[in-house]
Amino acid sequence: MSRYEIRIGGFGGQGVVTMAVVLGETLSLIEKKFVVQTQSYGPEARGGASKSEIVVGDVEIDYPKVMAPDVFIALSRAAYLAYITGLKENGILIIDEDLVEIEGDLPDGVNVYKIPATRIAEQEVGNKQATNVVMLGVLCAITKIVTNEGLRQRIEERWPRFKESNLKALELGLKAGEAALASQ
Amino acid sequence: MSRYEIRIGGFGGQGVVTMAVVLGETLSLIEKKFVVQTQSYGPEARGGASKSEIVVGDVEIDYPKVMAPDVFIALSRAAYLAYITGLKENGILIIDEDLVEIEGDLPDGVNVYKIPATRIAEQEVGNKQATNVVMLGVLCAITKIVTNEGLRQRIEERWPRFKESNLKALELGLKAGEAALASQ
Repeated sequence: MSRYEIRIGGFGGQGVVTMAVVLGETLSLIEKKFVVQTQSYGPEARGGASKSEIVVGDVEIDYPKVMAPDVFIALSRAAYLAYITGLKENGILIIDEDLVEIEGDLPDGVNVYKIPATRIAEQEVGNKQATNVVMLGVLCAITKIVTNEGLRQRIEERWPRFKESNLKALELGLKAGEAALASQ
Repeated sequence: MSRYEIRIGGFGGQGVVTMAVVLGETLSLIEKKFVVQTQSYGPEARGGASKSEIVVGDVEIDYPKVMAPDVFIALSRAAYLAYITGLKENGILIIDEDLVEIEGDLPDGVNVYKIPATRIAEQEVGNKQATNVVMLGVLCAITKIVTNEGLRQRIEERWPRFKESNLKALELGLKAGEAALASQ
């Protein structure tokens, strides 16, 4: 893997930044990759939108910005509309199917995975704030860019007091991602 | 303010990334600035070192990486040694005086502020993990790049369950920063 780019977009309160930080920490501290992880806030942040990017590689990252993401995770319609055109051809699009609809043209060959991440967090974990951890599990199952074991370890280290519900969210996300992958 | 650059370096567990994320959120969501906030993890992260950068501006940030920081906050000797040469001439250096000593030559005209942030967090807040919030208060007092009110609001929103000790940490950091400024 020379360079792999991930973009996550949503609205404030969905934990987009935390999701990217935990993913970046797992990839670097545990999986020993080189990682640059960026939040850019601009006028769109003022409307409550939130975007976070990760560039991962086996060697040092020369250019820190995402150019054309391999994966785009869209947790809001605004984020979907703003960033869908940047997705790489044959890239992976993961959307929260209760919050985002496919509109307009997609780049050629994109694989779309629709996951009710917020619903899973709310109804099965009992905590809507775990949506971002559900999506980490989904990302792990679909892309294999990060390992399940690495994410489990980082979640336990980072949130010792909330590890039970976060590990459950991760597990449910993995299952949802595997199911979506199997049904393609 | 066209462009202002902040670099924070320390070791794992000091909350360097969280400090930068909270600062970035405050500057963007509350103070309406343009912000890019980056974590870069490389081989040095494997030794437990941690670095985070923020670029702030009144207009969109064209180049997302810190070139020569206006402020460098060093919370570990390793971070100090790795990044001190990059500090801008006449820039601001803030160190945790119990963890970092001034070694070697500083860039010309640098103002040095020595703050026992970890000791304040441990002894006065009663929670070593609040070191990063103490340092946010110090940064606010010394640079005025962010407002006390903005930081208070963001801390209350972000950590409703831990707001009391975090607001205390912020307050103690502000006082320590003001005292250091007055004694220059």
